[in-house]
Order: sequence, then structure tokens, then C-alpha cells
Amino acid sequence: MPKNAFYAQSGGVTAVINASACGVIETARQHPNDISNVYAGRNGIIGALTEDLIDTSAESDEAIAALRYTPSGAFGSCRYKLKSLEENRREYERLIEVFKAHDIGYFFYNGGGDSADTCYKISQLSETMGFPVKAIHVPKTVDNDLPITDNCPGFGSVAKYIAVSTREASYDVRSMAKTSTKVFVIEVMGRHAGWIAAAGGLASDAENDIPVLILFPEIEFDKEQFLAKVKAKVEEYEYCSVVVSEGAKWPNGTFLAEQGTRDAFGHAQLGGAAPVVANMVKEAMGYKFHWAVADYLQRAARHLASKTDVDQAYATGKAAVEYAISGENSIMPTIVRTSNDPYTWEIGKAPLSEVANVEKFMPREFITEDGFGITQACRDYLVPLIQGEDFPPFDKGMPKYVTLMNEPVAKKLNIAFEL
Amino acid sequence: MPKNAFYAQSGGVTAVINASACGVIETARQHPNDISNVYAGRNGIIGALTEDLIDTSAESDEAIAALRYTPSGAFGSCRYKLKSLEENRREYERLIEVFKAHDIGYFFYNGGGDSADTCYKISQLSETMGFPVKAIHVPKTVDNDLPITDNCPGFGSVAKYIAVSTREASYDVRSMAKTSTKVFVIEVMGRHAGWIAAAGGLASDAENDIPVLILFPEIEFDKEQFLAKVKAKVEEYEYCSVVVSEGAKWPNGTFLAEQGTRDAFGHAQLGGAAPVVANMVKEAMGYKFHWAVADYLQRAARHLASKTDVDQAYATGKAAVEYAISGENSIMPTIVRTSNDPYTWEIGKAPLSEVANVEKFMPREFITEDGFGITQACRDYLVPLIQGEDFPPFDKGMPKYVTLMNEPVAKKLNIAFEL
Repeated sequence: MPKNAFYAQSGGVTAVINASACGVIETARQHPNDISNVYAGRNGIIGALTEDLIDTSAESDEAIAALRYTPSGAFGSCRYKLKSLEENRREYERLIEVFKAHDIGYFFYNGGGDSADTCYKISQLSETMGFPVKAIHVPKTVDNDLPITDNCPGFGSVAKYIAVSTREASYDVRSMAKTSTKVFVIEVMGRHAGWIAAAGGLASDAENDIPVLILFPEIEFDKEQFLAKVKAKVEEYEYCSVVVSEGAKWPNGTFLAEQGTRDAFGHAQLGGAAPVVANMVKEAMGYKFHWAVADYLQRAARHLASKTDVDQAYATGKAAVEYAISGENSIMPTIVRTSNDPYTWEIGKAPLSEVANVEKFMPREFITEDGFGITQACRDYLVPLIQGEDFPPFDKGMPKYVTLMNEPVAKKLNIAFEL
Repeated sequence: MPKNAFYAQSGGVTAVINASACGVIETARQHPNDISNVYAGRNGIIGALTEDLIDTSAESDEAIAALRYTPSGAFGSCRYKLKSLEENRREYERLIEVFKAHDIGYFFYNGGGDSADTCYKISQLSETMGFPVKAIHVPKTVDNDLPITDNCPGFGSVAKYIAVSTREASYDVRSMAKTSTKVFVIEVMGRHAGWIAAAGGLASDAENDIPVLILFPEIEFDKEQFLAKVKAKVEEYEYCSVVVSEGAKWPNGTFLAEQGTRDAFGHAQLGGAAPVVANMVKEAMGYKFHWAVADYLQRAARHLASKTDVDQAYATGKAAVEYAISGENSIMPTIVRTSNDPYTWEIGKAPLSEVANVEKFMPREFITEDGFGITQACRDYLVPLIQGEDFPPFDKGMPKYVTLMNEPVAKKLNIAFEL
């Protein structure tokens, strides 16, 4: 007898998380003997806890296909970390109750490290509670910090956006440097790992000799050395671009972004790392500067997604369903790089017990010895991930993204649940 | 006898100023009986003053064609405003001397209001100095503030970038609003006129009901009213996007960006309007926020250029050459809107005497009565300008922009010139 599937999006959304949703739902629709319907959690796992499920069967094939090129989380996502089993067993039990009420046999959880952990716990608990569901984690994170998988869906598109934006802005600065801006600073995401910042290094290559300095969260910020580097680059090139990770830190562990900036009322102001770095340069060398903070633009920029990333996001969603109906449980589909040049990849799998709560950082050999650039090994790793364009359809000059109807599934439990 | 032409880029560069350069050079190459060679000013007008000319004939047809899809200023631009004739007649005389030495009969100046003024003066002075050059101004400005022309090359692409980015980021915020960010603020360019900010309003349309509030430089900032609007939007939609112009001002004329922010050492910090607005919302309502400052990204984003804008940038460059060789002088090619729906346009011309030193602001009827949105009239004006995509070629995941050789023309004067 076919069972229903539950799908939820977790944590910060990306340009391609809906491509994974598309992979899950389209593949499920191809297997009606195994999966009768996919219910999505409204606002992620909260939707499961509050029995607020979305009936994806109400959406047309066209609408589901459009998820492939629509950024953000079509069903809503959430930042809601389930507590440990010991602390709040009730939450896990509630999930199983909701699954039971809606005849859910498959749990597809699309997220990062925390959600891999949740997914793992559910696979274990559902077993012991006598209502076993196949729990498969679909990888998603712009931070690229999940272990085992070669890379994470979501990352390639941010990497492409930052590489392209840094190149474009550098061309701009280069052409104005004689009389105007000499130093351009762009702040990028990645509070713990410097993967996104590293992508800024791709702005420069054999045909585009662009001076780019990168401030990684993995490298303690050395102000004197940094300023000397900026000075040297400006003297050689007349300008310089700086890519600063939001996670860049002083040796004492304080974020650069928290440099005690105060507003007129004396309130601490979270001003971002970019203006801090830019003002530092101005103060030391007097160079005119400009700075940008890409923020959500970088992870929402579906218009500039990497085709590789879109394909991999879809493929992991598809594989999740295929693994589940073939009987697999408590795993995450992974991306396995089988060749670097030409780049080839295939889908593999990793047990969730080895994925949960493990963070992958930039290897030191991906960062140049001086700490401000990327090595050839890093380029070899990154370049394939930004390959290919996959522009969304445009209408009247704007990308034509889909907004789903998101019709609710009738509730079956008569018990409210306090989050 | 054919004469040489001088071409220079002026002021802040755009995603399509090189498309105008492409139009000038390609058209000049088609008229060898009128124009023997196009010399470009290295770093704009400074190149003419210092006799630092670039020989564009050294560039292949392919390289010149690639200018059409390469952002920024390929020959270098500058922020260098010539003084008035009374204050520094020597500068104008020097220009004429350099033109004379290099047999320049055509002066194509690609810029905004200031350069239109310079171009106008040169057309007049060259006549009285007995070395008449045909001086044609090629319009360029992301600010869209030149008079007479329906719109300015450079603006349509920034408008498209801001409209798309605001839509994409709004999708992101919408999907996270339940537990995370509720208010997203994006800061955009336009110190005097709100044209770019207005484009943020295009994020929302009939198929995309997105709550967007715009803070225009033309409208005095009313904190209480603004906060009430944000609150109402968040209560209705669960989230809200705010597009703030860098030129948004308090009633007393101070920029929002200058809210007395101090760093740890008490130095005034130019932190941008976006964090000021975001913190204001947080303080009043406690909403979680995120903010972005697009800065140069918006005017360098050739990857998302408007095809209409690219076509018009090219067409004005082409028309400049055609007008000049047909004997016109002291004019600027303009874009004339001949129909709104379907959108059609043609090239016209305006005398520089009527262009110089006139700034075009947003008409009040383009802004909604409450001051926070755009009217249908504004949409009707803006939508055609962002029409069409004109993606650059990509190679290994990155746009393949051209960097010219920029070989110098041998100097003929033996006189240095102090800027």
C-alpha cells in the first residue's frame, strides 16, 4: 500500500532549495504505487508540529516544474531547532503522531547540519515508537559545510553570484581608480566557514588579472598585514577589491562587524564587517572606498544560479525519493566528484549518523600561505561548481517565479501543539 | 579629408557605457572617409588634458564588439569637473591644443550633466579659437536625471537589477518570516533623484504581491509614518521589504545615512542608510531584520542588463557619430518614446544649451500620495526600460568580459599639463 510523504524546508533558504523540492515531488509523482501524496510542512518542521500541512497534489505539474527555477522556500522554511530527545521528547513524539495521523511513511528533510541531526533522530525514534518512517535528509546550505558530500546544493549558486559580482564591481573600480574609488569591499555570508568568501577569488583568473584580497573566518585578522597588502595592491594596480566574510574575526575572537560602533543614542550598531574594513583602509592610507553588503541578494539570486548547482539540487531531491522507496533509511544523498577535468559527478549516499553535527571547514591548503587568497587546489575545487547558466524564464523584464497555492491538508488530530 | 575623433567616458561608469563606446567606434569604422581613427581618453577627459590618448585602431573588431557586453569604462573614466571658462580657461585651451595636435575633428563625450556642460563649452570655444570640432554628448547616467531625453542609457539596467534583486530577496524573506527576518532593507543609489529607488517598486506586480515600501530622496522622511507603514505591512503580510535611496533625508535635510554613527574611537562612521533604517524598525517594533547595500554591484551588473538599455546605449553612440559626420554640432542624441504599449522608441536630438546643468527629478505624480510607493504612471514609464535580457557570453561559469590593450597614441606636444 502506498504511503504519503512529508517534505519540509529547513533553515536559511537558497536559490535552489526549491529545485530539490521539485526533484522530490516530481519523482514522487512518478511512483504512485509507493507514494500517494507529498505533504509539505508550512514553514518547515513547524508545519509538522502544528499539523499545518500543505497539499502539494493541488499544484499543477507546471507549478511544480516552475519550482526548479524559483528561489527561496516555496512552502516556507523556519529557524527552529528541535531540542535533544532528553530535553524535549514530546516534540519528536508529536511529529510521529502527526505522521501517523496522515499515514506518512517517508520523511524528506531539506536542510543543513541541524536538520540532518533532526532527521537522524526521527529515523531512530520512529522505529522505537513502532511507526517506522524512512527518513532521508536532502542536503541544502549556502555555507557548504556538510561533511562527506563533495559540496552542498545551494553553495554553487552563491559562489557564482559572489565571483561574478566581485569581478563586475572590480571592473567598475578599475575604471574609476585614477580619480575616485581605489578600494572596494564586499561583505559575504559564511559565519563559520570561508567557502563563500573563497568564491570571491574566482573574480580573478588568467584573462582577468584582478587584485582581490579575501578575509576568511578561518584566518585570524591581522590588521597591519592586511593594510600592507592593500597598500601593495593599490600601488601595483591602482585599485584593490576586498572580499570580507561576515565571520572574519580579530585574534581575540570578536567579529570585525562588532567594532563597537554606536549610533547617536549610544546604542551598539551592527554595521557589518564591510564598512569597518573600508573605514580602516581609509584611516590608514586615505584611499577613497566603496563597500557593499550582498546579504540575502547572494542566496536569493536565482537569476544567476549555477546550472551545476540546480542540477545537483534537483538530483539530490530525486535520489532521496528513489532511495526511500528502495528501502533506504537514515541517509543523505551526497554529491560525489568522479573527475575534476572534465568535471563529472554522481549521486552517492552517507549514513546520517556520520553527517549529523559534523561541520566541514575550508582546508588550510585551499588558502594561500599569506592567508589572503585562494590556491590552485581551491580553484580546482570551486570552478566546476559554478559551471553553466540556468536562467529562469523572464516576462516583461522580470524573472517569472512561481508562488504556489499552498492549500492546507485537513487536520486529523484535535490537539493543538505549543511550540 | 577625414579627421580623427576623440571619445571619452566621464563620471561614474555603468553596465552599458561600453555599449555606447562600441556604437561610437563601430560606426566610425564604417565611415573611414569621415573619421580616420577614434582616440579614446585614458581615464576620461584627463587623458585629453595630459595628452594620454588610446589608439582604438589597435583593437580588433572582435574586441570592440565585446564592449557591447562588458560593463564599466573600458578606457577608464574619471571624476574631474572642468572649471568654468572664467576660472580656468587654460584647461579648455589645452583641450583644443591637444585636439589640434592630433587632428581631431570630432569630440564624443559620454557622461551625465556635468559632461554635457563641458561638451557644450568645447563646442563654443573651439569655434572662437579657430579650430572647430563637432562636439556631441553621448548620454550616460544611472541616475536618469538628464533632461529632454525620455530616459538615460545606464538607468534601465540598474532599474532591472534593483527590481529583480528586491523581488528575489523578498521571496527569501517571505519564506523565513514565520521565525526569522521580517523586515528586509535594501539601499540603492541616487543621491538626488529617486528613479533607482522607484525601480524597487517593480518587485511587486499583479502576479507577485510583495509589500515594498520606498524611501525617496524627493520625500521628506517621516519616521512615525514610516514605522506605522512597516507595522501595517508586517501585520498583513508577515514581512516587508524596504527600498531606501542613499539620498533619503530627514526634514532638516540631513541624510539618513549620516545619523551620527560613531565607531569605537568616536569617529563619524558613514554606515549607509540601510542599517539606520533597519535598526530604527528593530528598536520600534522588535522585528528581526536584514539589510543589504548594493553599491557598485547595481551599476556593474552587466550579467542582468536590460536589453532595451543596451540597445539604447549602442544607438546613442551610433547616432552621435552619424550626427557629427552629417554636420551636427553641440547636441546630444536623445531617446524619444513613441509608444508605451507596445513600447517603441527612436533617436532624437537636443541642443546642449538646453541639456547642460538641468536636472530631471521624479515627477510627484510618479510617487503614491502617501510617499512610499510608485503609481501606475510610474510603472508605465519604468516597465519598458527593463525589457529584455542580453546575457553576456559565459566561459567556465563566468561572464567573458573584454579588457582592451589600450595602447597609447604617440605624444605630439612636448608640454606637460598640471591637472
